[in-house]
Amino acid sequence: MSTEGPYVLQPIGWVESPLVDRDAAPKQGIEGSPDAWVVFEPAVAEGLRDLEVGTEVLLLTWLDRADRDVLAVHPRDDPASPERGVFSTRSADRPNPVGLHRVEIVQIDGLSVRVRNLEAVDGTPIVDVKPVLDRVLDR
Amino acid sequence: MSTEGPYVLQPIGWVESPLVDRDAAPKQGIEGSPDAWVVFEPAVAEGLRDLEVGTEVLLLTWLDRADRDVLAVHPRDDPASPERGVFSTRSADRPNPVGLHRVEIVQIDGLSVRVRNLEAVDGTPIVDVKPVLDRVLDR
Repeated sequence: MSTEGPYVLQPIGWVESPLVDRDAAPKQGIEGSPDAWVVFEPAVAEGLRDLEVGTEVLLLTWLDRADRDVLAVHPRDDPASPERGVFSTRSADRPNPVGLHRVEIVQIDGLSVRVRNLEAVDGTPIVDVKPVLDRVLDR
Repeated sequence: MSTEGPYVLQPIGWVESPLVDRDAAPKQGIEGSPDAWVVFEPAVAEGLRDLEVGTEVLLLTWLDRADRDVLAVHPRDDPASPERGVFSTRSADRPNPVGLHRVEIVQIDGLSVRVRNLEAVDGTPIVDVKPVLDRVLDR
């Protein structure tokens, strides 16, 4: 039924963040991430036009430093935690390392969008932005 | 800073659903989707081992019939709705058509997982499964 792959993601922007070390980064955005900028490509400017300061959105990233051969991990990198299948964790290491981040938009300056609660490290490619469908919790 | 692309998604499974017509499919899973099966590839079996019936998960799909050149749409395909940038909509048509679906697992049979509330059509490739981080709302 479906068209065949390969399915190739085109980065639409990039994270600029003081976070540079994956091992030192928070495991989830709400655990103390600094504000970060997302700088979008000019080609997608029209798609950004309805983003609004003060709203939350879902950012999808490509966690390009992940190990795609990993299928089970100790949650939160804690060796004392029993190993779990990656599809029951938010591990970056997984077959398709797409990161999902709920962030708040705090500033918009042309193609640059400043966000709160993003744990992705500097240089991480952005592949999509989606609205949250509820106003309460979406992570 | 980051490694260069291309970033290639490898399908880890496929949707088997009575829904075959994208135009007739519900816009969101909770709008009356029939149950569907997700059939995973044997290579990722270990990653599935902690999935549990009765829980909700996030499925990420590749909406392979999407138009990747679209940057603004009329929400819900309603010409009377003012056009919006795609990053403020859940349109399938967008530069990287990754679908995000919150579904409930209702049955697990080896590599086949039956889910409720999936609006993706038959044959849609699955690229990731993630736990919801809250128990209430995550869509």
